[in-house]
Amino acid sequence: MMPAITARAHTNIALVKYWGKADTDLIIPQTSSLSLTLDQFYTDTQVQFDPALTADQVTVNQTVLSPDASRKVRHVLDLVRHQAGLTTFARVSSQNHVPMAAGLASSASAFAALAGAASRAAGLNLSRTDLSRLARRGSGSATRSIFGGFVEWQAGHDDASSKAVPFMEQVDWPIAMVALVLDPHQKKISSRQGMQSSVTTSPYYAAWRDVVATDLATIKPAIQAQDFQQVGEILEANAMRMHALTLSANPPYSYFNGDSLVAMQTVRELREAGSACYYTMDAGPNVKVFCQEADLPVITHRFAQQFRDDRVLVAHPGPGIQWLEN
Amino acid sequence: MMPAITARAHTNIALVKYWGKADTDLIIPQTSSLSLTLDQFYTDTQVQFDPALTADQVTVNQTVLSPDASRKVRHVLDLVRHQAGLTTFARVSSQNHVPMAAGLASSASAFAALAGAASRAAGLNLSRTDLSRLARRGSGSATRSIFGGFVEWQAGHDDASSKAVPFMEQVDWPIAMVALVLDPHQKKISSRQGMQSSVTTSPYYAAWRDVVATDLATIKPAIQAQDFQQVGEILEANAMRMHALTLSANPPYSYFNGDSLVAMQTVRELREAGSACYYTMDAGPNVKVFCQEADLPVITHRFAQQFRDDRVLVAHPGPGIQWLEN
Repeated sequence: MMPAITARAHTNIALVKYWGKADTDLIIPQTSSLSLTLDQFYTDTQVQFDPALTADQVTVNQTVLSPDASRKVRHVLDLVRHQAGLTTFARVSSQNHVPMAAGLASSASAFAALAGAASRAAGLNLSRTDLSRLARRGSGSATRSIFGGFVEWQAGHDDASSKAVPFMEQVDWPIAMVALVLDPHQKKISSRQGMQSSVTTSPYYAAWRDVVATDLATIKPAIQAQDFQQVGEILEANAMRMHALTLSANPPYSYFNGDSLVAMQTVRELREAGSACYYTMDAGPNVKVFCQEADLPVITHRFAQQFRDDRVLVAHPGPGIQWLEN
Repeated sequence: MMPAITARAHTNIALVKYWGKADTDLIIPQTSSLSLTLDQFYTDTQVQFDPALTADQVTVNQTVLSPDASRKVRHVLDLVRHQAGLTTFARVSSQNHVPMAAGLASSASAFAALAGAASRAAGLNLSRTDLSRLARRGSGSATRSIFGGFVEWQAGHDDASSKAVPFMEQVDWPIAMVALVLDPHQKKISSRQGMQSSVTTSPYYAAWRDVVATDLATIKPAIQAQDFQQVGEILEANAMRMHALTLSANPPYSYFNGDSLVAMQTVRELREAGSACYYTMDAGPNVKVFCQEADLPVITHRFAQQFRDDRVLVAHPGPGIQWLEN
């Protein structure tokens, strides 16, 4: 019997977005990206390879997944088995501490935790770089969740070169991310479908690649200098330039809903009133607000009034992957 | 005493949008555009040059405009005076039959009617091409309102070459445009400011020029073939690619509100349910729906339920400039 291993990985929010694959099988992105790992939202995943099993058994939040729903998980397990020279099936049990479908990329923390737990459960001792490459095969954004703090996913050009690199693991900077849960329903157009449509049909996609190159080159020194305003302006413009790709696709689509527009307007009003903050959005209607610790009371109060207390979640920079005692 | 002349011009909705000036003084656009003149929304403007006046007197909907508010009107009057060798001031009285600030470009019909009335009141007998050039100096979209039906505004490169050309004046095609008045308030970012911001700060602007060239080249044969689906797909994608320029500007902005998103979703649902229709939007939250006469009952009923009866306005292809008997 091989050991049961449990890993914990946190989700992350991209400040310079990943939006489009160059290789859909290997999940090699069109561009590099940069994110902040968050402390409040994470996944704990336990994996055990067991010769008694006749198939992989995948449980998420106490629910056993169908073979179809567990396809990507089994794909990662296959990669681990191949690398470890194993033929044994595994028992995977995962607990998400991320509001479901809150646009908080639970797949990022889920596949990072899976990579960490499955590899060690199979007897592999992968470097964190190799773990990021393995996590990438399950979900692109999971690549970055192996590391804490600010993380760059270097696009690379093949399986070996497309990997995460920590940019600033220890964040000694009083910043926070406020996540507004504006629609608890599952998104209609997955990020996978959405980005593929943007890559193949948006006439602005080529210019987006240049946008990302410029934003990465300017946000890195701004993070190092703790220049809050510059980091904020870059992440806000970058997010909207990503969403402009959805509007310019054929057919056009959008992840915004009415509350997203209201929340973004509130961010502008808070900013004008002296509480510096900036918005970003991913493949769903929820808005995430980048702010400074000192402004959190004013900002969370305003959003709690506008929406509801339980729709306003606060997170801070979080750690990279950890292994838990069973 | 010179004669009082009254002209009527109708507003128009661009199917291939005008979004950006190459020359802000002469209002030479960055790209050509193509519109449909509508029968239901128009402006009647009377002009009389009167030696007894000591200043231009401009009245819109029974309200006398301040010198500041009438600046663009007086600019057009100056151009007419210069061309006619006149030094006399004028009395201008204008009646808008366009829901105010409904995103229906009342400035298009207003400046087209002004050009028609002022030029004849000054004794000039301009061709419709020259009238379109004169109207252009007041408001870009007014250039197209001199002609009826489908109209192209050829960008040109200077005052002489930037002019409207009728593409199909007599529209023998049972199509309609449903205008949804979703926000009766004045827009926050004028189209003038908005397009200037897009031109100078959107990294997608260069690609937008190519989008327009392609869309013009494909929509013209589609209009001639009365290929409703192709015309609809082009105008919908073109509109969203214009709005992607606002999202990708720095700072980003948007003309959408929650109801705009809801209305666009309803168009998609109507389409899936068999009532073919396509949406377009301009520099405001209102949505205009391009459809076929046969589908009008279903479409207007659905929007009247979703919003309110008086928010759903129906128009058909309209005529070019006319002069009315006083």
